[in-house]
Amino acid sequence: MALRKEHRIGRHATLLVLADDESEQQALINGLEWKWCSGKVGSMEAQKVVAAIETAAKQHGLIQNDVYREAHALYHTIMEALHGITRGQMQLGSILRTVGLRFAIVRGNPYESEAEGEWLAVALYGTIGAPVKGLEHETLGLGINHI
Amino acid sequence: MALRKEHRIGRHATLLVLADDESEQQALINGLEWKWCSGKVGSMEAQKVVAAIETAAKQHGLIQNDVYREAHALYHTIMEALHGITRGQMQLGSILRTVGLRFAIVRGNPYESEAEGEWLAVALYGTIGAPVKGLEHETLGLGINHI
Amino acid sequence: MALRKEHRIGRHATLLVLADDESEQQALINGLEWKWCSGKVGSMEAQKVVAAIETAAKQHGLIQNDVYREAHALYHTIMEALHGITRGQMQLGSILRTVGLRFAIVRGNPYESEAEGEWLAVALYGTIGAPVKGLEHETLGLGINHI
Amino acid sequence: MALRKEHRIGRHATLLVLADDESEQQALINGLEWKWCSGKVGSMEAQKVVAAIETAAKQHGLIQNDVYREAHALYHTIMEALHGITRGQMQLGSILRTVGLRFAIVRGNPYESEAEGEWLAVALYGTIGAPVKGLEHETLGLGINHI
Amino acid sequence: MALRKEHRIGRHATLLVLADDESEQQALINGLEWKWCSGKVGSMEAQKVVAAIETAAKQHGLIQNDVYREAHALYHTIMEALHGITRGQMQLGSILRTVGLRFAIVRGNPYESEAEGEWLAVALYGTIGAPVKGLEHETLGLGINHI
Amino acid sequence: MALRKEHRIGRHATLLVLADDESEQQALINGLEWKWCSGKVGSMEAQKVVAAIETAAKQHGLIQNDVYREAHALYHTIMEALHGITRGQMQLGSILRTVGLRFAIVRGNPYESEAEGEWLAVALYGTIGAPVKGLEHETLGLGINHI
Repeated sequence: MALRKEHRIGRHATLLVLADDESEQQALINGLEWKWCSGKVGSMEAQKVVAAIETAAKQHGLIQNDVYREAHALYHTIMEALHGITRGQMQLGSILRTVGLRFAIVRGNPYESEAEGEWLAVALYGTIGAPVKGLEHETLGLGINHI
Repeated sequence: MALRKEHRIGRHATLLVLADDESEQQALINGLEWKWCSGKVGSMEAQKVVAAIETAAKQHGLIQNDVYREAHALYHTIMEALHGITRGQMQLGSILRTVGLRFAIVRGNPYESEAEGEWLAVALYGTIGAPVKGLEHETLGLGINHI
Repeated sequence: MALRKEHRIGRHATLLVLADDESEQQALINGLEWKWCSGKVGSMEAQKVVAAIETAAKQHGLIQNDVYREAHALYHTIMEALHGITRGQMQLGSILRTVGLRFAIVRGNPYESEAEGEWLAVALYGTIGAPVKGLEHETLGLGINHI
Repeated sequence: MALRKEHRIGRHATLLVLADDESEQQALINGLEWKWCSGKVGSMEAQKVVAAIETAAKQHGLIQNDVYREAHALYHTIMEALHGITRGQMQLGSILRTVGLRFAIVRGNPYESEAEGEWLAVALYGTIGAPVKGLEHETLGLGINHI
Repeated sequence: MALRKEHRIGRHATLLVLADDESEQQALINGLEWKWCSGKVGSMEAQKVVAAIETAAKQHGLIQNDVYREAHALYHTIMEALHGITRGQMQLGSILRTVGLRFAIVRGNPYESEAEGEWLAVALYGTIGAPVKGLEHETLGLGINHI
Repeated sequence: MALRKEHRIGRHATLLVLADDESEQQALINGLEWKWCSGKVGSMEAQKVVAAIETAAKQHGLIQNDVYREAHALYHTIMEALHGITRGQMQLGSILRTVGLRFAIVRGNPYESEAEGEWLAVALYGTIGAPVKGLEHETLGLGINHI
């Protein structure tokens, strides 16, 4: 059941979201024949962050459009990543703060055993702070789930 | 008040904790004349994770030993990082799970303006899961605070 | 102080909310000379769920209209039931999810001793999920409070 | 993607855990050719509740012993059910309370579409209160997850 | 239903717990013919804080010893006060911190209308911090509940 | 590192917010040559509470307008005080409740050692309840942070 070192899916997603130039990290993930996508979203509303990630995942074929179990797996992966971003209250504008985030989603098989199947990782990185440019610091979140 | 791109303290701490070979990332942080340290801790008790990070920070001079405001700043930075690790309940053994983590602590000035002074970043990366080898997945957390 | 087996108020409320045909369960509760009511509410806004339950409770005389201690008791009972429904964040639309719920409220004396007086149970059952028909699973919550 | 009425897995698990006589509910679940098990656990330590449910699930073949994705699915299902039980803090003895619970675990296919595959439901029902006999009220929790 | 100005039970409890000399505040509460008590507790274990307050309440007749509804009302009042003390996680030693607290409990009728009956207030004030003398700051919590 | 008795910043802020006549408490704080301000805010939206406190702090010079570290310190102090006010969910209107609050902000040096520098206290006191006059009880919160 061990995690394979080169298959650390959360690390791949996090390095992708942190990269100034994504191409090297993309090549590594492509080499594993895994699916991935990345994007950006800024909002004072958490539901817009969720929607942006869900939409990107569907558009890039990371989850099947009409299969609820895949949507359910992705939703909980996003929620887990948002815990790291929000650190206590999963709220943005309602407590007067906003985020500007990059996101990366990776789908692959991190475990040696085939029976472990595919997993999802969602990494978020960017800034959180007052709705005033510059009054912000970095924030990061990672969610992992079986799919 | 803008964050300087090369001074993204949370990104530095995260890349350090994710690195298979820390030396390149260490050189970058040293080039900024910032303080940093890194280490490992595995436990079913969250307080041992907190204690390991606090002890390392003191031993490497990241916080002054007898100044409470620095200990207070570090404590809240660790708490924020633990939100990303635990994603909902800041509990380990009491809900039957354990962590094996690497940590990195960085102290530096991420903002262009000198008035913004020094900040702390604590990054945690490793695995979380059942207290059985292999029944685990990756987990990541980042905390940022002014000091 | 023991709970009487036939007086398990939370079980009565839950069986009522789960019933395809409520009549048998209603008869049991009526036999105890307890007050009850039931209804439905669907929303992406938690406050609408709270309001629907509060309104039904007042209309059916489960709480006195102008006595704050009864409104206070009911409010906290609803909050406890919503913990079961939301499992971590008491948020719906703000994290892009919606509920379709049935609710049952029961007021009665579950304990053998008369000194224990009356208690409230609020049970909620239905579905939670994305704001798309079918992308949802079941959810359940129960709150209990003295009144 | 619709939930089939007779296949409401959370309702089945909840009715099983609430039943004074489980046999009727067991027959219904057996009729669906789903797997289920039930049991009891009382403790001031949440990890013992988790362990009792995990052990029962493995012993009755509800999850495969050596497949982490199944253990992971079950763990999060239990966590969700514990939200309903604990309503705010997933803590028992550490805030001076104890539980006496029955549990039911069901594994089956609640959706019409075959692509939705198997899901898990964990229902918990019993009492929560002070560590003194009788100073307690009912509590209920339900978790649902894809497996 | 209005709160009477002289009957603000939470304010009375808080001023009592903040007083360097309690006698003036005690006289005011006695003048209302309300019940009160106060005490101290220091611990790294939240359950010891709960137990100290519950024991004092029983010993001073603020709650009836063998009536669960009164114990239930007090328990939730304490929990609410602990939210103010712990500000996010209701944990002390398990996240490496300790408290030294004074507590005050007041039972009285804060509302003009007799139908509102008696309510409980629990106020906590003291220090929270690392388990090292001096590495601590003040903390305060107030809970209010109907009884 | 000890807290000076006359310099208990949280106690000063709380007594200020509880005072029917603020002048005595103001004189004590002025005698310490500390900065303070106070005000009122009522809302069903938590962000309006945050904004009112932040605006007052800037207008009265408690934090420097263009220094993010001071805004960051204040924000987390407010969040901590809101934990005491909301006791579990940092939500108001979204769970159908509203607050009417007085606030006091104090900036000063509570510790004997000069190295401990300045700290912030935010105290909040008022009522919380249903959006109906009179259906409310008192609530209190205190946050403390280094600046």
